Amino acid sequence: MKFSCDLKLLNEVVSNVSLAISSKSTIPALEGVLLQCNNSELTITGYNLEIGITKTIQVNQQEEGSIVLNARLFSDILKKMPNQEILIASDERFMTLIQGADTEFHILGMAKDEYPDLPSIEDCISFELPEYLLKNMINQTLFAISVNEQTPILTGSLFDISNGTMHVVSVDGYRVALRREKVNVDKDISFIVPGKTLAELTKLLSDQQDQIAKINVCEKHILFEVDGYTMISRLLLGEYLDYKSAIPDGFSTRIHVEDAILAQSIERTSIIINDRNKSPIKLETEGNSLILSCESAIGKVNDRCEAQVEGNQIRIAFNNKYMIDALRHTDCDEIYIDMNGPLSPIKIIPVEGDQFLFLVLPVRLKNEN
Amino acid sequence: MKFSCDLKLLNEVVSNVSLAISSKSTIPALEGVLLQCNNSELTITGYNLEIGITKTIQVNQQEEGSIVLNARLFSDILKKMPNQEILIASDERFMTLIQGADTEFHILGMAKDEYPDLPSIEDCISFELPEYLLKNMINQTLFAISVNEQTPILTGSLFDISNGTMHVVSVDGYRVALRREKVNVDKDISFIVPGKTLAELTKLLSDQQDQIAKINVCEKHILFEVDGYTMISRLLLGEYLDYKSAIPDGFSTRIHVEDAILAQSIERTSIIINDRNKSPIKLETEGNSLILSCESAIGKVNDRCEAQVEGNQIRIAFNNKYMIDALRHTDCDEIYIDMNGPLSPIKIIPVEGDQFLFLVLPVRLKNEN
Repeated sequence: MKFSCDLKLLNEVVSNVSLAISSKSTIPALEGVLLQCNNSELTITGYNLEIGITKTIQVNQQEEGSIVLNARLFSDILKKMPNQEILIASDERFMTLIQGADTEFHILGMAKDEYPDLPSIEDCISFELPEYLLKNMINQTLFAISVNEQTPILTGSLFDISNGTMHVVSVDGYRVALRREKVNVDKDISFIVPGKTLAELTKLLSDQQDQIAKINVCEKHILFEVDGYTMISRLLLGEYLDYKSAIPDGFSTRIHVEDAILAQSIERTSIIINDRNKSPIKLETEGNSLILSCESAIGKVNDRCEAQVEGNQIRIAFNNKYMIDALRHTDCDEIYIDMNGPLSPIKIIPVEGDQFLFLVLPVRLKNEN
Repeated sequence: MKFSCDLKLLNEVVSNVSLAISSKSTIPALEGVLLQCNNSELTITGYNLEIGITKTIQVNQQEEGSIVLNARLFSDILKKMPNQEILIASDERFMTLIQGADTEFHILGMAKDEYPDLPSIEDCISFELPEYLLKNMINQTLFAISVNEQTPILTGSLFDISNGTMHVVSVDGYRVALRREKVNVDKDISFIVPGKTLAELTKLLSDQQDQIAKINVCEKHILFEVDGYTMISRLLLGEYLDYKSAIPDGFSTRIHVEDAILAQSIERTSIIINDRNKSPIKLETEGNSLILSCESAIGKVNDRCEAQVEGNQIRIAFNNKYMIDALRHTDCDEIYIDMNGPLSPIKIIPVEGDQFLFLVLPVRLKNEN
C-alpha cells in the first residue's frame, strides 16, 4: 500500500473514526485503525465490536493495499506532523513509513486479516432527519438512560415512530425523559439504540440546519450516514418499559416558573448534600413563592424563588440531581411543573408546545403518608 | 461575631487564602478558613502548617468575634450566593448563619482556639521587587526543581543575592535552571524557598508592571506581601548544591537556532518515546542542519531542522522531557545551545542578554566512550 493525501483531512477523519476504537484491548487489532486503499480511495475504519465508524476519502494512490495501525500512535503522529501532504507506505512485512516534509516515522502495522469484519446490513427501513434535530433529540434524553447493567434494555434510548411522530425516550427507574418531533416517515417502527452509540453519534452530528442524517434500521443493527461517515451499531433487543402508563394525566398543582431561576435555587440548596448524606430537597409552595429547603449532617439551608402557582398548595421532596438534570435539558426559558400530590411523579413540560416531557419520581418524606 | 460585606470581594479572598488550606487533613481545623472580625476589619486566614496566607478587608461589623469554617463548604456557598451583600453571624455554640437575598445557610463552625498559630516573624531583611518580575523568575526556574524527597534541599529554589544581582536557581541532578536579574538590594543574602510555596505564590502574583511585592526574609521563614495578601512560609535550611561549578565555560560547538522550531522537532520525535522505553533523542549536526532521531520498541523517527552551527560538528543524545522543559521556558525566540562534546552538559542561553541559563545533562550512548 502506498498513497499520499492531505494531512489535515486524514487527521480529522482518523480522529473521528477513533470514537469507535478501544483505547485498551486484549486484541491489539482492536486498538487499531484500518486503512484500505483501492481505486484512489482510502477507507478508514474504527470498530470496537459494538460500534463501527468508516469514511472514504480521495487520495493519490501509488499502490493499493491495506494496513492496521495503532490508532493512538497514528493519531499522535498525524497531529504533530508539519501541516501539508503526507505519504504513507507499507511493505509486505507491514513496516509502515509515514512521511511529511523533513519528518519520517517507521512503525510496525498489522495485517487486515487480524481486523474483525463489520456486521453486514440487509433489509433496512431507511429514513432521513436533519442532523441538528437528531442531535437535539438525543441530547435532551440521553441524560436519563440507566447506567445499571442489570436492566440492559434501559441502557439505551427507545426510538418510537408512529403516525409520523418520532418519540425518543429514556427511563432509568427514577425518571423519564421524552422528546417528540414530527418526522417524514411512513412506516411505524420502534427500536432501542445503546446509550454509548448515541453519545458517540452526537460527536459526529452537525449543528447546521441543512445537513441531513440518513438512518437505516435493520433487524439487529442500525446504520447512521452522517457527513460522509457511516456509523454502524448493534441494537438492544427486547421489550422496552411501558413508559406511557407512567405519565400522569392532568394535575392538582401547576407551577409556572423560569427554568434557570429554579435551577439556581436547587443548585444552591444542593451545596449541603453529598454522596454520603443524599438528603432530599423539600419544595413547598407559599402563595406564589417556592420555598426550597434541605437539612443534612453538614447544615441546613432555605431558599426561595418566585413562581405562579395554580391549584392546590403542595409540599413535595425530590432528589436534587434528577431535578437539576431535567431542568438543564429543557432548552426553554419557562416551564410548567405539574403535580398530583406528594407521592405522584413530578412532570416537567414546556409552557409552549409539547416537544418534551420529563418525569421525576418524588422522595417520600418520613412524616408523609 | 456578626458582620456584612461585599460578597464578590469575600469570595475572591477566601478562594485565594484557600491556596494554603489542606483539602484533606486529620485535624478538621486545618481544612478550615479562619475569620477574625475586629474594628470593622475582617482578617481571613488559610494555613496548612507550611504556608499561611492572610488578607484583611473592611466589613460592616455588628459584633466582633471569630470563627473557623470549613473552607471547601464556605467557598462553595459563597460561589453560589446571589451576587450582592452577604451577612455572616456566629453564635456562642459556633452555629453560623450565612445569608444573602432569599438564601440562608446554617452551618457549624469551630472555635478559633482549634486553629494553629502562624509563626511569628522577627529580624527580617526586607526588599522589594516588581510582581511580574518575581513571577517570571519563579516560572522560568520552578520546572527544574527536584521532586525527589530524598534530597529535600533540592525541592526548593535557591534565591542568591550578591552585588545587586538576584539569581534564582533550581537543580534536580539532571539539569539546572538559572534566572538572574539586577535588583535594588544592598545586602548579600541567600535563602531556599520550597517549590510548593513558589507554585502557590505565582497564583497570587500579578502580571501588571506597577505592582510591587515586598519580601521579608528571616532566619527560618519568609514573608511575601503581595496585593494586600501576606504569605508566610518556612524556608528550607541547609547547604544548597554548588551549581556554579557545574556550568561549563566556553564551547566547542555552538548552535544558533529558533527555540520554537527545535521544540517542535523534539516533540515530534518524542511521539515514539514512552514511560517504559525512555529512549533518548539523538541530535547530530550536518552542516547547518540538525538531524534529530530516535528509535524505540514502537518504531523509529527522523526529523531535521535548520540552524547555524559554529565550531565542531557533534553527535549527542538527551532526555526529551528535560530538553523540552528548558525550551518551553526560555521566553525568547532565538537561543544558543553550547556544547563541549557528547559527554558535557548542554548549555542553553539567550542570543541576547544573560537573563537565563539552562543546563541539561546528555545521555551517554552505548557506542560512545
